[in-house]
Amino acid sequence: MPTNPTIGVFDSGFGGLTVLRALLPRIPGAHYIYLGDTARLPYGAKSQTTIARYAVESARFLEQRGADYLVIACNTATALALPEIRAAVSIPVVGVIEPGAKAAAAALIHKICHPEPSAKDLLSHPGDTTQSVLVLATQATVHSHAYRNACAHLGLHTTEKACPLLVPLVEEGWTDHAVTRDVLRIYLTEALSLSAPQAVLLGCTHYPLIAAEITAMLRTLGSSAEVIDSAEATAAEVARQVDISPLAETAPATFECFATDSVEKFQRLGSHFLGQPIPRVELLDLGG
Amino acid sequence: MPTNPTIGVFDSGFGGLTVLRALLPRIPGAHYIYLGDTARLPYGAKSQTTIARYAVESARFLEQRGADYLVIACNTATALALPEIRAAVSIPVVGVIEPGAKAAAAALIHKICHPEPSAKDLLSHPGDTTQSVLVLATQATVHSHAYRNACAHLGLHTTEKACPLLVPLVEEGWTDHAVTRDVLRIYLTEALSLSAPQAVLLGCTHYPLIAAEITAMLRTLGSSAEVIDSAEATAAEVARQVDISPLAETAPATFECFATDSVEKFQRLGSHFLGQPIPRVELLDLGG
Repeated sequence: MPTNPTIGVFDSGFGGLTVLRALLPRIPGAHYIYLGDTARLPYGAKSQTTIARYAVESARFLEQRGADYLVIACNTATALALPEIRAAVSIPVVGVIEPGAKAAAAALIHKICHPEPSAKDLLSHPGDTTQSVLVLATQATVHSHAYRNACAHLGLHTTEKACPLLVPLVEEGWTDHAVTRDVLRIYLTEALSLSAPQAVLLGCTHYPLIAAEITAMLRTLGSSAEVIDSAEATAAEVARQVDISPLAETAPATFECFATDSVEKFQRLGSHFLGQPIPRVELLDLGG
Repeated sequence: MPTNPTIGVFDSGFGGLTVLRALLPRIPGAHYIYLGDTARLPYGAKSQTTIARYAVESARFLEQRGADYLVIACNTATALALPEIRAAVSIPVVGVIEPGAKAAAAALIHKICHPEPSAKDLLSHPGDTTQSVLVLATQATVHSHAYRNACAHLGLHTTEKACPLLVPLVEEGWTDHAVTRDVLRIYLTEALSLSAPQAVLLGCTHYPLIAAEITAMLRTLGSSAEVIDSAEATAAEVARQVDISPLAETAPATFECFATDSVEKFQRLGSHFLGQPIPRVELLDLGG
């Protein structure tokens, strides 16, 4: 009889809890170990060598702790250190970028089979027949072009738009707020002036918390693009890799959380990202 | 004949360049060495032990590099590690908090001698005769209560207001922007509902870039409080400690910059904070 799987989920902070939230209902009986390397965030401004070292330390901790699978729920670590992480552990590793790109491709194929172009799409870019994706992400993720490269492998044309204010707005708790809508209007107007995307890919683990606001603003601006949540796409990819058939009758999934600093902040802010209270966070020292 | 002084200026990032900007015109012939520990920012979320270790490493580098004076142009490092820094070096050390508190006290004394209360001040808090200061700062600085404690030593009552969105707005370059004014309106309305300050102390090195917008919004909201820039206050305190009388006829001040990561970002963003181009930034490795 197979034992229930243990799945390690790693992020530089608590944003990756949106990936854990998407995972929890998908694999019955699974146990999740979430590690937020909060003492060393943000990874975005650091060099590739430093990020790879940090990510490998975290990946090894999760493997030693008993993880059978590893989810890198961090765009920066996925973009800059996925090969190093895969080389450092002996368990399957799923990053957050490729599943997002694949979900965008699937959405576009669906749109080609069931086209519903808006008047704005046709009017503003009448000669543009390219299947194009707009990627919204942090400055660091855009700078890495990791989504553009992953989408290019699938034959998709991408426009990448850095949205530096969205993470602090979400962390301030202003998810349903006039200022956030104003900022979205500015960012999305700029992005839509450059392309007429059929899909908008949320390339940051904070953005699922304002997915509804992003969709609403796209509609206001005349775009019918489908919004793709890479947290959901990543969870779906993990569920495909884990054989859940023998587990159908087991108990609900469970989870435990580790953070490398500021346990209180992790608990307070993290519960918004997870969509449920986090009863306990354990402090972990991974060094300087 | 005395040699011109060398003054080390330290911050976790490039925000402290607003302090360097305030220093440059004050001490003729001085040479400044600025160090931004950008690889390990932000300090705000880290433990006191870690912050003290980082700050001491940076302070020692600046002393070894020839600094005769050291300016800690970083609110977090000043709040959490000033005693450790002073113990680790043998040169005079000026932090950014005490000068700000002293400047607020001086402004209040001036206001007592030359009162010009606005109608709003009198109407909303008619019985409040306390000399009170509103401190605007990051979450980490507010959490440390360093400004509240420094102001209390000077007999001032303080209200502290965390303004987490102001740093990312300034870093986005939205200093003269409708969204920034909306955010200021929200933060300042909240703060003014709790007190009627006679002085507003800018407790973050990013805020001098929006000092004019903060003053304008205070006036719009009916407050006549004076805005105190702790970068200017710190520069004035350093100038008092350095004997500049023999230097009056020497050349303009010069500066060199070091950063522990992302030299390009430092140069690009830093020039806005310094108010002039930064021709060269040297990369420095202080370890993990």
